[in-house]
Amino acid sequence: MSMIEASKKSFDKQGFMKTLGAEIISFEKGIVKIQCTLNDTLTQQHGYFHAGVITSISDVACGYAALSSMPEGSDVLTVEFKTNFIRAANTNTIIAKGEVIKAGKTLTFCEGVVTDASEKIIFATMQATMICLKPTE
Amino acid sequence: MSMIEASKKSFDKQGFMKTLGAEIISFEKGIVKIQCTLNDTLTQQHGYFHAGVITSISDVACGYAALSSMPEGSDVLTVEFKTNFIRAANTNTIIAKGEVIKAGKTLTFCEGVVTDASEKIIFATMQATMICLKPTE
Amino acid sequence: MSMIEASKKSFDKQGFMKTLGAEIISFEKGIVKIQCTLNDTLTQQHGYFHAGVITSISDVACGYAALSSMPEGSDVLTVEFKTNFIRAANTNTIIAKGEVIKAGKTLTFCEGVVTDASEKIIFATMQATMICLKPTE
Amino acid sequence: MSMIEASKKSFDKQGFMKTLGAEIISFEKGIVKIQCTLNDTLTQQHGYFHAGVITSISDVACGYAALSSMPEGSDVLTVEFKTNFIRAANTNTIIAKGEVIKAGKTLTFCEGVVTDASEKIIFATMQATMICLKPTE
Repeated sequence: MSMIEASKKSFDKQGFMKTLGAEIISFEKGIVKIQCTLNDTLTQQHGYFHAGVITSISDVACGYAALSSMPEGSDVLTVEFKTNFIRAANTNTIIAKGEVIKAGKTLTFCEGVVTDASEKIIFATMQATMICLKPTE
Repeated sequence: MSMIEASKKSFDKQGFMKTLGAEIISFEKGIVKIQCTLNDTLTQQHGYFHAGVITSISDVACGYAALSSMPEGSDVLTVEFKTNFIRAANTNTIIAKGEVIKAGKTLTFCEGVVTDASEKIIFATMQATMICLKPTE
Repeated sequence: MSMIEASKKSFDKQGFMKTLGAEIISFEKGIVKIQCTLNDTLTQQHGYFHAGVITSISDVACGYAALSSMPEGSDVLTVEFKTNFIRAANTNTIIAKGEVIKAGKTLTFCEGVVTDASEKIIFATMQATMICLKPTE
Repeated sequence: MSMIEASKKSFDKQGFMKTLGAEIISFEKGIVKIQCTLNDTLTQQHGYFHAGVITSISDVACGYAALSSMPEGSDVLTVEFKTNFIRAANTNTIIAKGEVIKAGKTLTFCEGVVTDASEKIIFATMQATMICLKPTE
């Protein structure tokens, strides 16, 4: 099983991604995009996408971008991330793009960007550190 | 309406908090605790609490801790946060405690800690910056 | 006095930038580059550039990128930043490029990248939030 | 050589710490304090301690707090950190306290706090991730 297939299989096991209605819309080695559509289960107090939703899909996009770059049989965990909320996500659909900046043996640095459906208006940016759990661990 | 009442009212408007089954369990000026119980709509790939759930309730606990310290009529938005995932949240109930470190006229610095139900095992720590939207804005 | 001139004048007042031997090598609205050359007053325990030096020039590049985008007479302070250390800065010269991602009335989000002299090898990335101190404040 | 002795020896190799006039004033397993006194080589544009100085000594305090908790013969590198600047460091002496929150086999999470000499007024807080370079690596 390729790491892309493994990443998709792992994604399907995440109950929380179903809860968000999140879908992988693009998957290549080192770059993963996840999309999510607004409904009233995902809102903050003004009716926009909740910061937690924005962060969650960005984290997962970064995590699978990292996993897709790791040796077969690896698993991935989030060490830490930081999210900047650039503007309110007053839109119907958001896309999180996670990208590997540097893939190391143990740690992988990723960047996430969350935009509207046109991928032009930036709502949030993320820096994330992922750790590789090796097959034998 | 006091800022504590206003904070609770704002919390109830957040559709995403209902989705998480999150509840405010403690509310005083500058310190807010939010609790969340595991079910399979909140999991990551190993069946533990998703990093996104942990972050979301910590963000909201910090946000209302900040709001409860602001002038009446204010609203609050998250500027940015960073979360460290100290250990896997392999537990049934998590509690996020958000606390104000410094309340400024415009910006409020908060710290969040997410623990198990005993509040002794730390799963994650957060640093968050909140901005005050003033009544007249 | 233009904001670029004001930024340069402010830079010259920073005693710590002299200590680092840091120089502004490029200055346009929203993008500032600062360069620093290694000597044994700037090292960590392996003789490479210290993480603190890397962070300091990136912070300042972001700060003046932000200031150059603000109204005349403004001043700028760093609210917070996060730095990722991608690889050891085992090189003779580093360049920090600070860039404005979103300039707001109060807060400005910036990104910093610290590279070698060719601007191709990335040593560190930064996300920074800057606050505008308005002329009348 | 104990890890505390090794940490002190490593500190003395950091040219940049000499440049800052930084001194270790307290060293126990998991908690390290570093002090620095203001002079005009360490200032930002208003004459206060530069954010880069504050961050540098906090990073080093966290790094040696981490190293002092690692197996003998280890070395430590900073993976990433985030610093919040709570208020301007308008004071003569700053103390950075670095503390281990969780020491893992590979990664160690630390928190830093930078205060005035009384250790009561907080200027900055830091969250830092350190990585252990094992003796055999």
